[in-house]
Amino acid sequence: MGKIDDRLNELGINIPKAAAPVANYVGWVKTGNLVFTAGQVPIKDGEFLYKGIVGKDISVEDATAAARLCAINMISQVKDACNGDLDRVKRVVKLVGFVNGVPGFEGQPTVINGASDLMVEVFGDNGKHARSAVGAGSLPLNVSVEIEGIFEIE
Amino acid sequence: MGKIDDRLNELGINIPKAAAPVANYVGWVKTGNLVFTAGQVPIKDGEFLYKGIVGKDISVEDATAAARLCAINMISQVKDACNGDLDRVKRVVKLVGFVNGVPGFEGQPTVINGASDLMVEVFGDNGKHARSAVGAGSLPLNVSVEIEGIFEIE
Amino acid sequence: MGKIDDRLNELGINIPKAAAPVANYVGWVKTGNLVFTAGQVPIKDGEFLYKGIVGKDISVEDATAAARLCAINMISQVKDACNGDLDRVKRVVKLVGFVNGVPGFEGQPTVINGASDLMVEVFGDNGKHARSAVGAGSLPLNVSVEIEGIFEIE
Repeated sequence: MGKIDDRLNELGINIPKAAAPVANYVGWVKTGNLVFTAGQVPIKDGEFLYKGIVGKDISVEDATAAARLCAINMISQVKDACNGDLDRVKRVVKLVGFVNGVPGFEGQPTVINGASDLMVEVFGDNGKHARSAVGAGSLPLNVSVEIEGIFEIE
Repeated sequence: MGKIDDRLNELGINIPKAAAPVANYVGWVKTGNLVFTAGQVPIKDGEFLYKGIVGKDISVEDATAAARLCAINMISQVKDACNGDLDRVKRVVKLVGFVNGVPGFEGQPTVINGASDLMVEVFGDNGKHARSAVGAGSLPLNVSVEIEGIFEIE
Repeated sequence: MGKIDDRLNELGINIPKAAAPVANYVGWVKTGNLVFTAGQVPIKDGEFLYKGIVGKDISVEDATAAARLCAINMISQVKDACNGDLDRVKRVVKLVGFVNGVPGFEGQPTVINGASDLMVEVFGDNGKHARSAVGAGSLPLNVSVEIEGIFEIE
């Protein structure tokens, strides 16, 4: 068991097996030392959670939990890219978070903190990343949040 | 003629000359082994096709065709980055697809499959990429789809 | 004083000290020769300028000025990544600009030209970048524009 696995255990976070997309794309691609992940959505055990438009169907608090779940699913993709060894993650480089909010919604940073905070809980200072948080006009299957990431691994 | 050119011929796909943007940006930038493309829109012979908002002005089927056209235009940029030799493409690394849908639109993955499928038709397994599909609030000139990409070349 | 500093002086552009985000993310991450910036917003001396939805609350002209201000703030992040020496910037690789427009807004390219033009004014041909300009459904704190970037530095 690696150090990051220990940390995940301490935090009580279970990293699921990486989900394989059902189309002509993949969950991650490695090029050089960089891993680019597909956009991750709030899915757990095959079920979409926290669905809907933030500010209308669901609360900022639930959307923040959705962002955290996106981040957990992102770590599962990166774990797969690292052949299971998350200690190979040198840096979380970038996150882009899309929030399915009502027009005029202003709370994207709060929502995406659900993912940013998780990255730092898990990876410490190496989890600190450049980030964009923006509002989408709509999202696949009406999920509330979608997040993509770039990681540096060794 | 390279292998990928042969494949494009088989598929009956004509890759146009790369369009030069009419502003202070360019169609692609190469850094190291990576090529980053500008956002590609559904334009053919200088004319914008499949315009409008998906779910209101145009159908999911037409938007999927728009995504395929974006992908063809993206390949034209990458061909330019490769000095005309598409066999230098090692991997389609990442696509981000923005769909101009009505609020609550859920079919972004179906639409962007128009681009993902084309990449795999053309490049085979090397065409499998990490992907994000999101809804835009609006798009330039009211196009239905805009897609940007990252490619690894040798 | 470097060449780019001289150029900024000629242009009358003051690059502020890089703002530190107040959350678990950072303004930039360097990986290899690439610098990825966080999404930059139109803030000056701690105050958000040109707020609101383009085509409803503010004009395209003001949104273009907002994009220029985003670009200035982005350069401040890159300067920080270069330990103050902007002559180390080899290339502006990519900009992605999100515009908070009304539904059906078509002028994203005009707005984001405010940032693209600045990059070329400051960095010359090295400032020419691949670019995406898209409409957001909403943006943090109701800013009109948010822009993220990738730079190659030496």
